[in-house]
Parts: sequence; C-alpha cells; structure tokens
Amino acid sequence: MTELSALRELAASLDAADPLAAKRAEFDLDPALAYFDGNSLGAPPKHVAARVSEVVREQWGGRLIRSWTEGWWDAPVRVGERIAPLVGAAPGQVVVADSTSVDLFKTLVAAVRANPGRDEILLDAATFPTDGYVAAEVARLTGHTLRRVPVAELGTAAGERTAVVLANHIDYVSGRLHDMAGTTAAAHRAGALVAWDLCHSVGAVPVRLDECEADFAVGCTYKFLNGGPGAPAFVYLARRWQAGFDQPLAGWAGHADPFAMEAGYRGADGAGRARAGTPDILSLLALDAALDVWDGVDLAVLREKGLALGDFFFRCLDVLLPGSEVATPRDHARGHQVSVRDPGGERTMAALHERGVLGDFRPPDVLRFGLAPLYTTYAEVVRAVETLRDVRESVT
Amino acid sequence: MTELSALRELAASLDAADPLAAKRAEFDLDPALAYFDGNSLGAPPKHVAARVSEVVREQWGGRLIRSWTEGWWDAPVRVGERIAPLVGAAPGQVVVADSTSVDLFKTLVAAVRANPGRDEILLDAATFPTDGYVAAEVARLTGHTLRRVPVAELGTAAGERTAVVLANHIDYVSGRLHDMAGTTAAAHRAGALVAWDLCHSVGAVPVRLDECEADFAVGCTYKFLNGGPGAPAFVYLARRWQAGFDQPLAGWAGHADPFAMEAGYRGADGAGRARAGTPDILSLLALDAALDVWDGVDLAVLREKGLALGDFFFRCLDVLLPGSEVATPRDHARGHQVSVRDPGGERTMAALHERGVLGDFRPPDVLRFGLAPLYTTYAEVVRAVETLRDVRESVT
Repeated sequence: MTELSALRELAASLDAADPLAAKRAEFDLDPALAYFDGNSLGAPPKHVAARVSEVVREQWGGRLIRSWTEGWWDAPVRVGERIAPLVGAAPGQVVVADSTSVDLFKTLVAAVRANPGRDEILLDAATFPTDGYVAAEVARLTGHTLRRVPVAELGTAAGERTAVVLANHIDYVSGRLHDMAGTTAAAHRAGALVAWDLCHSVGAVPVRLDECEADFAVGCTYKFLNGGPGAPAFVYLARRWQAGFDQPLAGWAGHADPFAMEAGYRGADGAGRARAGTPDILSLLALDAALDVWDGVDLAVLREKGLALGDFFFRCLDVLLPGSEVATPRDHARGHQVSVRDPGGERTMAALHERGVLGDFRPPDVLRFGLAPLYTTYAEVVRAVETLRDVRESVT
Repeated sequence: MTELSALRELAASLDAADPLAAKRAEFDLDPALAYFDGNSLGAPPKHVAARVSEVVREQWGGRLIRSWTEGWWDAPVRVGERIAPLVGAAPGQVVVADSTSVDLFKTLVAAVRANPGRDEILLDAATFPTDGYVAAEVARLTGHTLRRVPVAELGTAAGERTAVVLANHIDYVSGRLHDMAGTTAAAHRAGALVAWDLCHSVGAVPVRLDECEADFAVGCTYKFLNGGPGAPAFVYLARRWQAGFDQPLAGWAGHADPFAMEAGYRGADGAGRARAGTPDILSLLALDAALDVWDGVDLAVLREKGLALGDFFFRCLDVLLPGSEVATPRDHARGHQVSVRDPGGERTMAALHERGVLGDFRPPDVLRFGLAPLYTTYAEVVRAVETLRDVRESVT
C-alpha cells in the first residue's frame, strides 16, 4: 500500500466515524471542489437561497412596510440572541449590526469613554489590519496613544495608562488561539478593559466571553457562521457596560424610542444600544436562516473535530510534503486552519484553485487552508495536501 | 354623477395616459392593496427575489470565495455608478456602503476636517432625527458647536465659523423640497461646505449635485430606489474632495490596497475611499437588481408624474375631505408625498391599514402618503382619500 492510499484509507475511516458527518449534507457544496476557505467565506446552507427569496416575496413584497413591526425591527437583537450561546454569552448581550470595522469603532470609542483618566489603547501587534486602522482612528479622535504589542504580552503590557486592550482571539494568518481568560484577567488587574475580536473563533472554537469576564467583543458572521458574503457583524456588550455604552454612531436604530422621532438621542437599554442605522434585513435574515445549522451542534464535538482535521492535515503534510514550513501551531493552541509558508504562495494558490482545491493566500507567503468542522472532510484534507504536493512538483 | 365617481373617471383617464404606466407591471404588488409607503420602503421589483436566490446559489454557493474577485469586491463602486445619474453626478463620485447614519458620520467628520479653522456645524432644525444625533456626536468628538436653524435659512446663517452645513433635500414630515442650488451657493459664499441628505429625494425628483456644486451627499436606497429593507446607503463625494476625504471609519474596504494587508491605512482613490468594512453582498446585489427598473426612465417624466399624483391627491382631498389640514406644500416645492394632519393619526392610519391602504404615521400628528411615480396609480389616490373619508366618518 502506498503512503497516499494509506492516508486515504485512514481518511475514509475518520469520515465514517465523524459525529458531524450528517451536517455536510446541509450545505450546498459542489462535490467537484474541496473547499478550504470556510474561515474566510463559509459555504451556504442549502435552505438559505429559498429563505431569502421568501423574505423578498412574502415579507418585503407581501407585507411591505408592515414587516417592520412584524419582526424586522427587532431582528438585530433576536438574531444576536441566537449567536450568544456560540460565544458563551448569557442572553441580552449580543446584537447584530453593521460591519466588524464599524462595530469595532463604536466599541473602542465607548470603551475609552467608559474608562476615563487613561490615555492609551493597547493593540495586538499582529492584528488583522482593519482593527489597527480603526484603533488608530479612534486614538486620533479621542486623543489616546496607540501602542502595539505582541498579543501574548497584551495582558502584562497593560498598565495604569491603558484604557482598553484590543486583541484577536485567533490570529488570522497563523491560526494561533490566544488566551482569552489569562489576557483578560491580567488587563483587568491593571484596570484596563478588554475588547476581543472573535472573527476567526466564533463558530470554530468554544468562546467563553462571560466566563472570561470579557468587557466587549465583535465578530463576523460570514466565516464559520456561514452567514453569507459580507453578512452583518455582531457586538457583545457585557451587561455591566450596557447602561454606560456611549458610542458615537448614534443612529436612530439604537435609540430608546426610535419611532418617537425625538430630537435628542437616548440610547436603548440592552445590547440594542450598539445599533446605528436601519438594519440590513435581507442579509440579516439570510444569516438568521444560516444559523439553523447550529441546532443540535455540541461545540465540544465541533472543537474536537476541528482539531482532528488539523492534526490529520499535519500528518498528511509530514507524509506527503515532509519539511513543510507551517505557521500554525501543531499543539492545540490554534483555531481551525492550517497555514503553510510558501514564498511563491500566490502562484501556488492559483494552481490549487485550478485543480479545485480552494484555500487562500495571505501576504507575504502564507497558504491558508480553513477547516470548517461542519462540512470539511478528512478525504478533502488528503486531496488538499496531495494536490499541493503535485503543484509543488510541477512548479519545481 | 357623484363627486366620487367623477374623480374615479378622471383617475382612469389619467392612468390611461400615464407614460410610466408600464412600469407598474415590473413590481410585485398585491392588487388588493393600495401602497402609499414607497417613500419609506419601496416595493420590490418582480425579478429581485429570483436574482437574490441566484446570487446565493450560483455566486456564493457555486463560486464561493472566488466571487470576491469576480465582481463582489468592486460592487460598491459599480452600483454607485448606477446611482450617479439619478443624483446628477458625473461618474466616479458615488459609492454604496453601510447605512445612512454611518455614512453621515464619515461625511461630517471628513467635512469638518476638510474645512479647518472653523468650529461650527449647521444643521437643518427639522432634520430627520438620525442626522441630528449623528451631527451632535460628530460635534462632540471634533469639538465643534452644533447649531440648528430652519432649513430655508441655512445658507444665510452660514458664517465664518461654519465648517459644514447639513441639510435635507426634502423634509421627511412635510415633503417640502428645499433649494439645493441657492442654499449651497449661499453657504459657499460664507466658506462653508455643504452636505445634503437625499433620502427622500433620490428616485423621486431630479437631483443635480454636480450642477449645484454640492460637496457631499448621502442617501438611502430603500425608499424610492426600491433597494430592499435596510439596503445599503450611498455617499457622494465631489471629485475635488476625494483626495482629502479623511474619514474615521478606516476599514480595510476603503484602503488603497486592501489585500496587501498593510499595517497602516492609506485611503483608496475615488469615491471608494468612503467604504469601511466588507460589503454586504446579498443586500447590495438585491439593490443592483432593483436598479434595473430605472433603465429608460426619464427623470423629468418621473417628476411630472409625481407632481401630478400629488396635485390629484389635493384635488381628491378638496372634494372628499374639504378643510383637511395638509403639511405638504400645494405648490410644487415638494417631493412625492402628501402629509395630512390628524390629531388621532396613529389610530386613523391603523384603520387605513385594515382597509388595505398602506401609508404611515409620523408623530405628532401626520399621516404620510408616499407617491411612487413608478407604480402609484391615480385610481389608488382616489381609493386612499375615499378610505380616509370613510375612516374619519366612522371614527367621528
């Protein structure tokens, strides 16, 4: 038996024993493709297309303006409540609104206002760029200093000047999982607040915001939550910060009584206070539909499968492409992706795409393979690594 | 012949002669209803449901992540170019992104930064509330003073301290149309910049941003543009302000080279600089589809029909409900709505809804009837006023 066929056989037995195997059938995935970009754009659950079409025809077309009071206006909070259990939040603390960039802006301004007398924002030095851009703009508007430190040192770097720490739960390039509990506790000891970016962890690993006593979080819904391209993001406001959440995007949707059309702004109670403008209903209800696939999913089982897929990816690399340089931790302090370094990575990824293996490339030299436990199979992992080997051989 | 049957006969002849009559068939409207809320939520063009479903199945499901480079990433600018002719903008100045509230925030911060050494923001005193909330927050963050003056006086009220004037093109309660050319010119003479809120005018009346030398504008796409509930808003940046457009929602989508993942923010060239986070593709492409109904529409004809519908509404009121107090100008300095004052308006509107006439209520006492020239008929106008009379009689 060749090494490759042994891996294929092992993959077949792992797929056969996969407790989440039935979930794959809920997604609309071209069987000719091996999709490894669920960490960037989750695949569509099969029922979403029909549901969105129904929203257009029946709610928008049939009920017209009446739909606003028949479920649309409150949808940001209602859908937020569906996300809450996925991020370890008790009810009443999550709302869906706007994009991650916009939500980060609201959150950081509110956070520095909630922690006055301090003049510094601490930022994960390896952050996804948009977090850094937004944090820099918040610092500029509020007169704070922005300091970038490696994420592992954020907790200890926080000092008496630090108003808020902004950290990524999972690094978008390497897939490294950071210590939410430890970092939050250390920052709190210094009197700083902590905001977490959950874009790469929600729907991938269990997130325990309440348990870690996180203050704020934002996250995106189009990656592991499969909410659709550019689906609206969510904000977590720990209950203790809600009444004082003082954010500058004071749109009417966050007003305590929006249809009273008052001249002055009064923020709503609860997480809805983080809303700004009129909610984007088609995208929001597509997300709502997509969240149905989480019914009955045990996050511990999801986590276990994600790690097993990653372990198996490493094993395939060791066998088929020994000596590969990998940016993702081999230990389990990682999310669900494997990042392989490749100096010609952009060309390599294009060749993989031609062969039906869809990952992505992140500069300067990283091939990212996302592992979505709800639909990625072990057989696809073998195919990805085998194809990567073939591409490398044909390039060399 | 009764007065009512005379009005009905007139309506029938006006509908028969309507140059836009064929457009009505492009919309999905329940024939049992008379819809008068297109100024709040436009009706869906018939092809939108199928198009959105196709986007989900074929672009999201079929092409997956590849769609981002196959049209999605540039869609905000491409769809903006479709809106440009509707607001009198030469190409390259309109982009679709975020909500009106969020776009106003970006625009006002950028405007005050573009006009330094001045410390005042002038605001339309009767503004839609969200504009006032956002302007107040911008003033607070930038250290400016917010002064509210009646919209007709905005131009002359602008002085040497005024950085920017924010005005509504059409008042959301009364439907009054304001003088864009005169106000802009007067404010410019005082050295102030002018930002226009086009929410109630785009798709209703011809807008001439370039001709009026407006500096900035924002507008919503879910009213007369029929883009769908909460569809993304648009921003107009006059070409001369684009290079200096310095806005705080510095998300990666507005970056000059977003996929280079640079640590520092560099704004894109052109109107795309007003983008923030990842665009909301499902809603954006629903809007894109909805804009197809504008193909071949002459805005002068649209305007003429909108005014004729309003004139006919007044005539029906005069005949069937003489003495009605109306908040909308009888002369043609108005958009496409008729606002009737009614102290018990909330109850009246509920009764109208029960009878299939869908307008809306705005506090404290205004019944609003939106007239959407693409699909509102003269026969529906008679039905609305007749039903209003019946409701009033049954209440009295």
